[in-house]
Amino acid sequence: MNEVKVGIVGATGYTAIEVARLLQSHPSAKLVAATSRADEGKPLAEIHPSLAGRCDVQIETFDALAIAEQCDVVMCCLPHGASAETVRELANAGTRVIDFSADFRLSSVKVYEKWYGVTHPWPEKIGQVVYGMPEFFADKIRDAKIVANPGCYPTSAIMPLSPLIKAGLIETSDIIIDSKSGVSGAGRSAKVATLYCETNESISAYGVGTHRHGPEIDDLVKRISGTAVSTIFTPHLTPMDRGILSTIYVRPRNADGKNKLASAEDCFACWQACYDESQFVTPVEHLPATKHVSGTNYVQMAVRPSGDRLVLICAIDNLAKGASGAAIQNMNVMFGLDESTGLK
Amino acid sequence: MNEVKVGIVGATGYTAIEVARLLQSHPSAKLVAATSRADEGKPLAEIHPSLAGRCDVQIETFDALAIAEQCDVVMCCLPHGASAETVRELANAGTRVIDFSADFRLSSVKVYEKWYGVTHPWPEKIGQVVYGMPEFFADKIRDAKIVANPGCYPTSAIMPLSPLIKAGLIETSDIIIDSKSGVSGAGRSAKVATLYCETNESISAYGVGTHRHGPEIDDLVKRISGTAVSTIFTPHLTPMDRGILSTIYVRPRNADGKNKLASAEDCFACWQACYDESQFVTPVEHLPATKHVSGTNYVQMAVRPSGDRLVLICAIDNLAKGASGAAIQNMNVMFGLDESTGLK
Amino acid sequence: MNEVKVGIVGATGYTAIEVARLLQSHPSAKLVAATSRADEGKPLAEIHPSLAGRCDVQIETFDALAIAEQCDVVMCCLPHGASAETVRELANAGTRVIDFSADFRLSSVKVYEKWYGVTHPWPEKIGQVVYGMPEFFADKIRDAKIVANPGCYPTSAIMPLSPLIKAGLIETSDIIIDSKSGVSGAGRSAKVATLYCETNESISAYGVGTHRHGPEIDDLVKRISGTAVSTIFTPHLTPMDRGILSTIYVRPRNADGKNKLASAEDCFACWQACYDESQFVTPVEHLPATKHVSGTNYVQMAVRPSGDRLVLICAIDNLAKGASGAAIQNMNVMFGLDESTGLK
Amino acid sequence: MNEVKVGIVGATGYTAIEVARLLQSHPSAKLVAATSRADEGKPLAEIHPSLAGRCDVQIETFDALAIAEQCDVVMCCLPHGASAETVRELANAGTRVIDFSADFRLSSVKVYEKWYGVTHPWPEKIGQVVYGMPEFFADKIRDAKIVANPGCYPTSAIMPLSPLIKAGLIETSDIIIDSKSGVSGAGRSAKVATLYCETNESISAYGVGTHRHGPEIDDLVKRISGTAVSTIFTPHLTPMDRGILSTIYVRPRNADGKNKLASAEDCFACWQACYDESQFVTPVEHLPATKHVSGTNYVQMAVRPSGDRLVLICAIDNLAKGASGAAIQNMNVMFGLDESTGLK
Repeated sequence: MNEVKVGIVGATGYTAIEVARLLQSHPSAKLVAATSRADEGKPLAEIHPSLAGRCDVQIETFDALAIAEQCDVVMCCLPHGASAETVRELANAGTRVIDFSADFRLSSVKVYEKWYGVTHPWPEKIGQVVYGMPEFFADKIRDAKIVANPGCYPTSAIMPLSPLIKAGLIETSDIIIDSKSGVSGAGRSAKVATLYCETNESISAYGVGTHRHGPEIDDLVKRISGTAVSTIFTPHLTPMDRGILSTIYVRPRNADGKNKLASAEDCFACWQACYDESQFVTPVEHLPATKHVSGTNYVQMAVRPSGDRLVLICAIDNLAKGASGAAIQNMNVMFGLDESTGLK
Repeated sequence: MNEVKVGIVGATGYTAIEVARLLQSHPSAKLVAATSRADEGKPLAEIHPSLAGRCDVQIETFDALAIAEQCDVVMCCLPHGASAETVRELANAGTRVIDFSADFRLSSVKVYEKWYGVTHPWPEKIGQVVYGMPEFFADKIRDAKIVANPGCYPTSAIMPLSPLIKAGLIETSDIIIDSKSGVSGAGRSAKVATLYCETNESISAYGVGTHRHGPEIDDLVKRISGTAVSTIFTPHLTPMDRGILSTIYVRPRNADGKNKLASAEDCFACWQACYDESQFVTPVEHLPATKHVSGTNYVQMAVRPSGDRLVLICAIDNLAKGASGAAIQNMNVMFGLDESTGLK
Repeated sequence: MNEVKVGIVGATGYTAIEVARLLQSHPSAKLVAATSRADEGKPLAEIHPSLAGRCDVQIETFDALAIAEQCDVVMCCLPHGASAETVRELANAGTRVIDFSADFRLSSVKVYEKWYGVTHPWPEKIGQVVYGMPEFFADKIRDAKIVANPGCYPTSAIMPLSPLIKAGLIETSDIIIDSKSGVSGAGRSAKVATLYCETNESISAYGVGTHRHGPEIDDLVKRISGTAVSTIFTPHLTPMDRGILSTIYVRPRNADGKNKLASAEDCFACWQACYDESQFVTPVEHLPATKHVSGTNYVQMAVRPSGDRLVLICAIDNLAKGASGAAIQNMNVMFGLDESTGLK
Repeated sequence: MNEVKVGIVGATGYTAIEVARLLQSHPSAKLVAATSRADEGKPLAEIHPSLAGRCDVQIETFDALAIAEQCDVVMCCLPHGASAETVRELANAGTRVIDFSADFRLSSVKVYEKWYGVTHPWPEKIGQVVYGMPEFFADKIRDAKIVANPGCYPTSAIMPLSPLIKAGLIETSDIIIDSKSGVSGAGRSAKVATLYCETNESISAYGVGTHRHGPEIDDLVKRISGTAVSTIFTPHLTPMDRGILSTIYVRPRNADGKNKLASAEDCFACWQACYDESQFVTPVEHLPATKHVSGTNYVQMAVRPSGDRLVLICAIDNLAKGASGAAIQNMNVMFGLDESTGLK
């Protein structure tokens, strides 16, 4: 087939540059257009000097029709609220869209509006956009016009939790997710809080009890497992560029009418069965570190007993499997390529 | 009074250099002797070049009597197992000792031998050595011959938990402690696992369900609050030199016959009352980061609601309040100085 | 004598917080007032959470008379250009001032205006303000109303170079200064360029041939040694919070009518003689690392032969001896205290 | 053509894991064998957990014939001295070898033995092994049995210097190379000096005037340009995993009988002409940071005037273009593939 022509809308951030980086080595897709309000007319390589000599795309003024004409698919890297409107324009102009924002991830307009504090600009679309996690939704992604690319923290929690909940191995309430993210998750806008000297040599919690990825986790685990769950989620800012480690505390259940609680081995076997076909999700014996998956689309997960609980540990790269790698994986599925093309 | 003369036994590690650093600016104490098997005869400043031009102590061969003669107090920075024997020799030789190892922290020989996997060399002393946390045990520290200096992780958990348990504000079971430590906690011996390129840009859990600081936390919370507790403790290696952040998930109780669950505000008020006299423990409104206490003996703690739980967040510097700062604070109490002397 | 009462003007930046930190442990000086246009009315501890529970100063509106009335000395932490005007107001109001900006460091209005691109607001004062390096100018600092606190890079170059130039041991031209600074040197304003993810895991040169500290180095080396020099200076942004390492390439001369070139040993001996009385400047045998002086007012310097050159290596902490530590040292001298008070 | 079958000898270090990483995404080569004395019998993925689920190679006992039978080419990642002997065995056994050590890089046995302090085990081969820098030696690499893979620092100096020397644009003496490397360059053996807490938050020079990459730079610049040069080289350990930045101070000459000194623009144009065909070497207008080339085989170089000198700045990734990326590039040339295969 022909090379997939890709555009990026909102090209100045870290997820955008990661898309550009991954496309450099993609054998069947090519970056052909980019827009960014702040940097119109500049070469993309001027904004991201790591592309110098490797990419001659110029940042153009956003025009949905012009972009749609050039691109088979657009990576929409805009913030929530702003994104939905642009996604609509692009879809109407006839191109397929992978939306990096949270605008189409949740099932409920009400939940969205409560947690994001904005009126949804395209509410009738909510619930109709597939969640871009090919491990569970490949069939719908294949033909989707619009894909809601998953959140980074949710990916690190949904992937270990969903199979265990579905298999009835763990309790659905009393799930505690303690997540640690690299600083790139906070974006590339100029803020004192993410200056080097504020975040280096320091770890801190933020958004305790109030982070928007909490409801996304609950929503998706329910959609995948068929069972409602209630989780407690605490994100932490960790002094590193990339990576998310989620340490998840769960209670084992008496599964399948058996008379004993599910063990760490039972959970491991459940993961192996669930992710048998997956090219990226890897249950591991060792305790995963974010470095083990840095810069890759891989997911490593391990499980250990601790007191009367089980501890699930999941490592991803927040910019790759947590954002841009997942987007490329979605694109591969959308265009009939092997899901790992350009991602190994 | 006269200047307190201080010795360090086991002077090559990070806690030893931190003691030496803190003594540089202590107005009423002075480092006068140091021993280290590996580096006998060398100037201490050769092992720790940050002392160049500031400290002329030479590393001498360990001799309990010789050390005892020179020193009013000895900081014993040896590993567990090796430490107890040396502490005995030093105490018998007539000097007071602050022991950095775990050898005298626990109440039970059985628990010690189970978790540390060694036969305790001085078991009859177990239960008779004061735990060096002046916030709770100043009276006993004052006259102690031997002080068991607290563990770093335990300090970050005991201080927020104990007052709340004592006041009956939270459940005694179902406490989850997710702790993140800087790499200095892993010590200064040459190991691949703590090379720069192994730990930089990476966060990982270790010792899940098996770390020895778990029983220390339970033991001390019980001693302080009078109530047995059962906690789940997971330490993480974080890419930074120093600092511990503990994120602690607890369940509020109906306190004092009231009909409603304890709130975050109740917990905050309880801390304020408990630590009213403390010069170092600071309940704070903001979410503490390890950077806020880096290099200091301060403890910052905050509390937030999250779902049906409360989340306690406590930041300390693992080398200061988590080790050498606490030791200086103990020394101050032992020698009748204000506890904050040299630590502000 | 009475406690020195200290004010900070421009209290939101990294040098201001470092002054506040150092004053916490200063036995004879106390922070009593702070101003900052952006944060009027807030507690200083809200801007700098490391001061929580340790400092109750409130940020007030700048009023030169009010500040002067409260303070024996003001640390003026404003940017160049803006600073001179404020320094004049404060001096006229009757308080002594230590100016952290470059406004009074250079000897020549013309050079200042060329390199800083602004018209100097108080040009007649240029050449009359003492450069705050007590190692060379203590006599003038003692009675100074205004002290120009040295630049960070210049400190790391002036201190190793000046004695060697004065002693005629090295050539005055063909001096190359390759300096590496931690990111705090770039300040605390919100800029994309100093976000964590831009500077972490990366080193880069900046201001090659154009950095303003170049002429400051030349000016001061000349003032101290009596001989004009011409240097080439290249600063680099290094992924660490604090510290400057300057690697300086010089050519040895036939000194003192001798028939052989000055050796590394000659230079080392020259430094020892020059800094014999200094409590902070330490010629060392080892190769200094910035970590060896981190958080301290110390200066470590070493010298090595390399081909037909000598390589001087100097490590300082950019925020301490490179800024706020030097300011406290200056303050000590101004108020008749031992220069190391509160800095050991 | 068939897939190139690749072996790694000495598979536990950082260059080995980087080879394995790069081969994961190489479309025409595959890792088929690995040896490592310390880890025989283990899966390679156990030593390098980032390969979990991606690589099923087992570490086998070294046997030159067995390796040669399995592999078209062997990456020999042993230390100098030990390497030459193994390279000989492998070559005799009939496989092609890319040697990561310094054993065959220099032209002179005498220089080798002086700087490396060992007797060369295969001295007659010295001067007959091609230096693996395809930008200059592709013709010889194509048919080579053995390739000497370049040193990391030398790559960052040879590439900017050689064309300018060859074109007569700069003086051949009085060249100062101030290089800054990430910690991975120090290798993966357990040493206190490269522990996280020793190198983090610190920059330091090492091997001043004595580092072995100095003579390699001089040797190769001479071989490429035809002119002898004499450089001064100072390496620095920088707190980051990967990357080398070399800041090089040179003097412009009156080139080509012209009456004026070569300018920065002349040098830039010279580079553009020299590297016109190169897929990796990129002269850039911006000041390159190591982050701009991190994880890639690219070389970014810039030039600026500073006083009467020119400053050349060159950024590479020490593990990629400085080691394993260059090795893959060499392999591509050796097996008739496009030099950038698997490296974009």
